[in-house]
Amino acid sequence: MIVVMKSGTPLAEIERVSQEIRSWDITPEKLEGTHKVVIGLVGDTAEIDPRQIQNLSHCIEQVLRVKKPFKRASKEFRYGEPSEVVVPTPNGPVTFGQNHPLVVVAGPCSVENEEMIVKTALAVKAAGAQFLRGGAYKPRTSPYAFQGHGESALELLAKARVVTGLGIITEVMDTADIDKVASVADVVQIGARNMQNFSLLRKVGATLKPILLKRGPSATIEEWLMAAEYILAAGNPNVILCERGIRTFDQQYTRNTLDISAIPVLRTLTHLPIMIDPSHATGFSEFVSTMAMASIAAGTDSLMIEVHPNPAKALSDGPQSLTIEAFEQLMQEMAPLSKFFGRWAKNDSATVMPKFAAKVATMAGV
Amino acid sequence: MIVVMKSGTPLAEIERVSQEIRSWDITPEKLEGTHKVVIGLVGDTAEIDPRQIQNLSHCIEQVLRVKKPFKRASKEFRYGEPSEVVVPTPNGPVTFGQNHPLVVVAGPCSVENEEMIVKTALAVKAAGAQFLRGGAYKPRTSPYAFQGHGESALELLAKARVVTGLGIITEVMDTADIDKVASVADVVQIGARNMQNFSLLRKVGATLKPILLKRGPSATIEEWLMAAEYILAAGNPNVILCERGIRTFDQQYTRNTLDISAIPVLRTLTHLPIMIDPSHATGFSEFVSTMAMASIAAGTDSLMIEVHPNPAKALSDGPQSLTIEAFEQLMQEMAPLSKFFGRWAKNDSATVMPKFAAKVATMAGV
Amino acid sequence: MIVVMKSGTPLAEIERVSQEIRSWDITPEKLEGTHKVVIGLVGDTAEIDPRQIQNLSHCIEQVLRVKKPFKRASKEFRYGEPSEVVVPTPNGPVTFGQNHPLVVVAGPCSVENEEMIVKTALAVKAAGAQFLRGGAYKPRTSPYAFQGHGESALELLAKARVVTGLGIITEVMDTADIDKVASVADVVQIGARNMQNFSLLRKVGATLKPILLKRGPSATIEEWLMAAEYILAAGNPNVILCERGIRTFDQQYTRNTLDISAIPVLRTLTHLPIMIDPSHATGFSEFVSTMAMASIAAGTDSLMIEVHPNPAKALSDGPQSLTIEAFEQLMQEMAPLSKFFGRWAKNDSATVMPKFAAKVATMAGV
Amino acid sequence: MIVVMKSGTPLAEIERVSQEIRSWDITPEKLEGTHKVVIGLVGDTAEIDPRQIQNLSHCIEQVLRVKKPFKRASKEFRYGEPSEVVVPTPNGPVTFGQNHPLVVVAGPCSVENEEMIVKTALAVKAAGAQFLRGGAYKPRTSPYAFQGHGESALELLAKARVVTGLGIITEVMDTADIDKVASVADVVQIGARNMQNFSLLRKVGATLKPILLKRGPSATIEEWLMAAEYILAAGNPNVILCERGIRTFDQQYTRNTLDISAIPVLRTLTHLPIMIDPSHATGFSEFVSTMAMASIAAGTDSLMIEVHPNPAKALSDGPQSLTIEAFEQLMQEMAPLSKFFGRWAKNDSATVMPKFAAKVATMAGV
Repeated sequence: MIVVMKSGTPLAEIERVSQEIRSWDITPEKLEGTHKVVIGLVGDTAEIDPRQIQNLSHCIEQVLRVKKPFKRASKEFRYGEPSEVVVPTPNGPVTFGQNHPLVVVAGPCSVENEEMIVKTALAVKAAGAQFLRGGAYKPRTSPYAFQGHGESALELLAKARVVTGLGIITEVMDTADIDKVASVADVVQIGARNMQNFSLLRKVGATLKPILLKRGPSATIEEWLMAAEYILAAGNPNVILCERGIRTFDQQYTRNTLDISAIPVLRTLTHLPIMIDPSHATGFSEFVSTMAMASIAAGTDSLMIEVHPNPAKALSDGPQSLTIEAFEQLMQEMAPLSKFFGRWAKNDSATVMPKFAAKVATMAGV
Repeated sequence: MIVVMKSGTPLAEIERVSQEIRSWDITPEKLEGTHKVVIGLVGDTAEIDPRQIQNLSHCIEQVLRVKKPFKRASKEFRYGEPSEVVVPTPNGPVTFGQNHPLVVVAGPCSVENEEMIVKTALAVKAAGAQFLRGGAYKPRTSPYAFQGHGESALELLAKARVVTGLGIITEVMDTADIDKVASVADVVQIGARNMQNFSLLRKVGATLKPILLKRGPSATIEEWLMAAEYILAAGNPNVILCERGIRTFDQQYTRNTLDISAIPVLRTLTHLPIMIDPSHATGFSEFVSTMAMASIAAGTDSLMIEVHPNPAKALSDGPQSLTIEAFEQLMQEMAPLSKFFGRWAKNDSATVMPKFAAKVATMAGV
Repeated sequence: MIVVMKSGTPLAEIERVSQEIRSWDITPEKLEGTHKVVIGLVGDTAEIDPRQIQNLSHCIEQVLRVKKPFKRASKEFRYGEPSEVVVPTPNGPVTFGQNHPLVVVAGPCSVENEEMIVKTALAVKAAGAQFLRGGAYKPRTSPYAFQGHGESALELLAKARVVTGLGIITEVMDTADIDKVASVADVVQIGARNMQNFSLLRKVGATLKPILLKRGPSATIEEWLMAAEYILAAGNPNVILCERGIRTFDQQYTRNTLDISAIPVLRTLTHLPIMIDPSHATGFSEFVSTMAMASIAAGTDSLMIEVHPNPAKALSDGPQSLTIEAFEQLMQEMAPLSKFFGRWAKNDSATVMPKFAAKVATMAGV
Repeated sequence: MIVVMKSGTPLAEIERVSQEIRSWDITPEKLEGTHKVVIGLVGDTAEIDPRQIQNLSHCIEQVLRVKKPFKRASKEFRYGEPSEVVVPTPNGPVTFGQNHPLVVVAGPCSVENEEMIVKTALAVKAAGAQFLRGGAYKPRTSPYAFQGHGESALELLAKARVVTGLGIITEVMDTADIDKVASVADVVQIGARNMQNFSLLRKVGATLKPILLKRGPSATIEEWLMAAEYILAAGNPNVILCERGIRTFDQQYTRNTLDISAIPVLRTLTHLPIMIDPSHATGFSEFVSTMAMASIAAGTDSLMIEVHPNPAKALSDGPQSLTIEAFEQLMQEMAPLSKFFGRWAKNDSATVMPKFAAKVATMAGV
């Protein structure tokens, strides 16, 4: 349930209404939108009659019930205002969100050794990435496959962070490892296979760390948003959704099928920022560049690209990794397209067209 | 099997080699590429030893066996040269192909009456479309649903063609109707449900009419190319492939899942031109525009957009149809993006970036 | 809409009511059930008020509207009474239906030559099959694969029919071939790929020939029943539904996934008889026997089993074909299980258990 | 890699060979089959030349490399001998395995209160079940749905165990809860959504507790066996595989699609025992009975059936739960069918047919 306050409502009145609501054992969450203040009601609101709230103040414009099963993740909960996930990194804060430049995350599938991770980090930074990805704990189909170097890999990521100033994104697989991972990672990743590991979701939700929630390969969009809701409901508002390809009947030429239409669909359902991972989605480096371009045109807020100094010798996921050179070239291609859409960090040249993304972002009505 | 001739081989020598091959009961198909002449061998080549052919002439650079199950549809068969499907329309020839401007096809799901089809045709032409789509024979899940006006709808399409000069694309469902449909249509459509109606494929393959082959909602890319091969093998080289969304486990927010990665995958497999239909793929007009933009960025050669003067009253597929105004706006958005990629018909403004599509089109090796 | 007449209503009164209904441009279809007479109303019944009909006669027990999109195929349309498809064969009539013995159809994927088809026919007859299957026209993914011997294969099937007295089931792919195929076949098969070839459905619906309608590999149960409705709506009540495996994400160890739960689901939705084809479903002969047993336990009315005298040399689908010996063994295994369920033709031994199928067949309410 | 010893090899010689192998840093696992002794080699055997081993003793019949990616789970690893998972329960040991009677597990989705769980336990025991299922920790799509009563539910399960003597099967979702759950459960369940929660698999693998591994709704059979391999590789050989329906394109009439063909497929791939859960698979109580019968005919070793004293008031999964009466009736139906296949615990009546399961179980060759 949300309470929309009239424009110009004095702060004291908003505070008074919030206090009143609190007295009913409901937690009010204040959101200052561009035009209005909205109060989201968190708790058991099923029994509350909207008119009861309406009567609290003549400054209340309307009281709306969120009908979607995902409450906090729904667009309605923020009255159409996209949320922003601000991640402090050594190089400064980076914001994921619809009204912000494209954020590029790059790096290898797994952290193999110091030389390779530092080399890759320096290269992707030079090419323009804001985050380094790299797996310390790797979920692998086979128990006999390389499982990641674990804790020692976390140390190497910390080193790469110091050297480059890049933010770090790495995956946590076990509730027991959350603190350890969160001490190094700027964004903690929940992998696709753990999207419905509800214990893990609840526990990362109990932190305030930004969370990258990958879509399960066979998860519906609603299940994905419900998984995000677990994190949000536990108190952590910093969730980024990452589409990484879904499992379909055709697996001959691509590993998964990148569901780009998830982007416009999510825009109608949620305020959360979106990342696309074309590397895992396609499984082959030769398709990454085209799908990255398509994702930008569809309005993604962020891209995750697998990069390896020597893909042929990668310990995992070599076929889908770009070489450093290929990544540099991709950045060269992405920059003008992102500028075209008004979504490039150093937006030094005029954009060809009015912000396409902005149009998408407008609220069509709750 | 293909025979690559050395650059500068005299025509007479190519003719001599072709004659020789013909004497083995194999049909040689000459393709004049930008740099070289390639002879495709059609027939039972399984028993032929490539060295046998190599020995025919010192002007033969190499003899290559096409390993893909789809022979004529494969990129190798044209030695990496994309094919062009040139469609004569009253307004002049329109070419579908990788090195040509984006072709826009627009119109209603089905032809309802003269006023609506002529009105729509005039509007989409004014907005910049080159083709009018409209169903006369409609494949419907229910026998009790509107099945299309059939022959009388064909006459209305003929009228809209005269009035606007637009090319006409309409579907044929029965081998018995091919002549009738082909007499009106500039491009004959094989619908998704008939993608493996092999009798129909063989019979449209026996004409030279351009054929739009929609991908079956659960067809693999290989099955789709094999369906194209039926048409090509019957002698008709004018095939355009149309992706219109595949069936997956998630059908809650979109009707199908648009498989945009089919574009880069097809580029590595086939020389045939590609069309994307975001209307059927998503099933909702609000997602069409974003997916059209993504498709352009991924390098599609053509787009098919459903447009209806009054979607709320459409006899079929209303929810996925754009209004005329929405289509005009979409064209306004698509034009600068297509220009950006160097793929807009009236390419009067400078492109921001070297042709992206060209890069994709280059032959990485047979 | 159906009109349920009270028990004991005189024939003349039923006739009078039917006449009255006919005067409204609605066709009444009389069904004499075991206990009651039901009149199905065919035509545009949307505007009719049930009370209007109720008032026609005091012998009318109730008037029910069929809510399912498939009307004639729905269980309601026959007031829960399973339909029977009686096929006259040289050996006598064979009935497909819930209250009848299991019908076994066996034979090769395609008719290869006279010797093999006659040999197979004799063998499967000796083992207890009632029908011979064999393809004359084969839908093949590749235009270069064996397409069936066509008309000459039909002649061989006719010969096998004369020699063995078995009924013949063979597929039609083109509306132009229906008469030719129907002149030989006792049951005409619509293949999985043509399940939504609506022209073909309408035209076989215009005959009274029993039709075997295979489920498309990605067709929902509702789409399948709607396809059956095309045939029923065209006037042909003799439809048998055949499940032959659906396409899923896992195609590593089986060609398709046999959806056995389609059996109990169909029992709640339709009166039509059901056949299971474990050969196409699994794609491997080693799994056929187990899945045949499971299908019998789930209550199938019929089984279609691929049998070839020499699977290793089959022109198509060898890996899924049983040898003649394996088929004989399977019949030995199926007989006691079918007897156990009271569904074996020569039901000479006592059944262990009261008819399981009968329980399933009872009408739980319309 | 496995070493097959000749029949009649003296124990001392087997011990000597094992010692030799141990000296190479490979762990030998001795399996005494019905006819032969087989030694499975666990460790990095990639570099070992089979002839090297062959030369160790003239009592070695042959040395075979396991080619499947799942080593310990593969049928080859036990030379075709099915494994048995023996679970001690208060009522005595119950064995899951191909050559043992059908094991029936029954109970509610979640433990709601003492009265309902004890009542259900008494009822399912009286009807013939060997195990009580019931969720203490429930993985739910929504964070707002009932999540199970946790620890207090475990206590209620312990009470039901004491009262009835039934074995207990309940799910663990978090590595932190393993000890707690294992202290009550006789079989610990890994739920479908956690099938690839590799941390959890490794940790339950470090116990010797029997583990029920549910197939993920979109997991391939190979991924499922690789998940089992995680547990086996961690040292726990007591794994039971449970198929509970897979996710497909059709979700209109059933929640999932029960993949019964997984049974014969698994029989060719693995020695592990199999359970089928028709309740979750179909999602509707009306289909449970038919699918249970089909599963028995396909040779399942065990069935898991959801039973609730009042399904309409169940806190979770009511629609798929049988009433106690319906469960009793199902047991009445399953008993004769299981006896027919020679797989009923109190096998007091003659079986109609030689063991069908036994045939399936024979080793066709490694």
